[in-house]
Amino acid sequence: MNIGKKIWAIAEGYIPEWSTGPAPDMTSHEAACILNAGDEKAHVRLTIYYTDKPPVGPYHLEVDAKRSLHIRFNELKDPEQIAPGATYSSVFISDVPVVIQHTRLDSRQAANAVLTTIAYSE
Amino acid sequence: MNIGKKIWAIAEGYIPEWSTGPAPDMTSHEAACILNAGDEKAHVRLTIYYTDKPPVGPYHLEVDAKRSLHIRFNELKDPEQIAPGATYSSVFISDVPVVIQHTRLDSRQAANAVLTTIAYSE
Amino acid sequence: MNIGKKIWAIAEGYIPEWSTGPAPDMTSHEAACILNAGDEKAHVRLTIYYTDKPPVGPYHLEVDAKRSLHIRFNELKDPEQIAPGATYSSVFISDVPVVIQHTRLDSRQAANAVLTTIAYSE
Amino acid sequence: MNIGKKIWAIAEGYIPEWSTGPAPDMTSHEAACILNAGDEKAHVRLTIYYTDKPPVGPYHLEVDAKRSLHIRFNELKDPEQIAPGATYSSVFISDVPVVIQHTRLDSRQAANAVLTTIAYSE
Repeated sequence: MNIGKKIWAIAEGYIPEWSTGPAPDMTSHEAACILNAGDEKAHVRLTIYYTDKPPVGPYHLEVDAKRSLHIRFNELKDPEQIAPGATYSSVFISDVPVVIQHTRLDSRQAANAVLTTIAYSE
Repeated sequence: MNIGKKIWAIAEGYIPEWSTGPAPDMTSHEAACILNAGDEKAHVRLTIYYTDKPPVGPYHLEVDAKRSLHIRFNELKDPEQIAPGATYSSVFISDVPVVIQHTRLDSRQAANAVLTTIAYSE
Repeated sequence: MNIGKKIWAIAEGYIPEWSTGPAPDMTSHEAACILNAGDEKAHVRLTIYYTDKPPVGPYHLEVDAKRSLHIRFNELKDPEQIAPGATYSSVFISDVPVVIQHTRLDSRQAANAVLTTIAYSE
Repeated sequence: MNIGKKIWAIAEGYIPEWSTGPAPDMTSHEAACILNAGDEKAHVRLTIYYTDKPPVGPYHLEVDAKRSLHIRFNELKDPEQIAPGATYSSVFISDVPVVIQHTRLDSRQAANAVLTTIAYSE
């Protein structure tokens, strides 16, 4: 089935600069979870907007039909890595409808904190 | 009264693999809270979308008229349990309007963390 | 200015049964924040939907024009208190547009956890 | 590209009154992240609605074209600072479409907690 939208935005973006606990589970990270419930592969172009420099992208992501992709912003490499500690926002443009949710795990102190929100779509 | 939608999605899904503190209160878990404020029982079909295998479902849930159901993904059994540590997304299809909210309690470290979001609906 | 909707729902509801740290700041609680940015007082009827008993309500709330009200579900008394540990959902019906956001502070373990989401509106 | 809306509201507002850990990273704070993905600078007027006094504002914010701004409510000064411990709501009115997300870091106890939600838009 088709569910979702083709344009999504996450206004908050920040990769904590340090971590407490075993990697990779407890490594501080920021993630976007993308659901493609449809019958066609999704091709997603991701652009990162920064506070003090021009946007970087697109990063190219693919989500197979009827699959869920959890990407960590920490692991994006092409065209360039996101610097921990930078503040940014992200925009996703997909060729088929998807659903995107934002999550962060922050383990800078002794016990981890987590946050989430369904992203903004239109 | 009728409030809500019939189609809902949660893109983020992950059951933490361990816990700290007394069960069941402090057991790490992922939950969906379903409000059926209407006058008819809701029959909800839940499908789980994985990263690296085909979707599993439907799981059949029922929410009585004028009731609130809090289901823990950890406790789903039929057609199969969700493996802790797996990354997934979920889609709910109801025969009457409902409202769905996503919650997680993560107690892997000494103090629990929690997150929530109203799910995506259309 | 008028901003918001007249019907709001929060599907997740749960008041943690114990707390760590000084009251009232660190007392575990569940809250609804209601913004009335308009020029008229808002009269809000709140109904609580339970898992295993009929709904209770309405609770009557008032939010003055151009004011923000943060109510703690723990402190609702009329027609009855909500039992800590119960699972519930809530529906708010206002006579003028408002914006409602759900928040919880959970201090059952040594460090508090917090969650939030804009509620569902229609 | 243009993405977003011109009117946004965050119903929950509260700056925790103390912090644990090194400043400024671990200082308890409340933030609004504003994405301006468009080609024109955004001029945003922010009004703070309180529980027990008239609204204060507008605060004037600017977000350059194709940039992301993370503002801490703690640091707003003109027309006046927000008192830690006060409960408030906020409304943002922009002259071009933007996307706004609400975040808080609460480090009052030994390990920080975090929360987020996409704000309400119309």
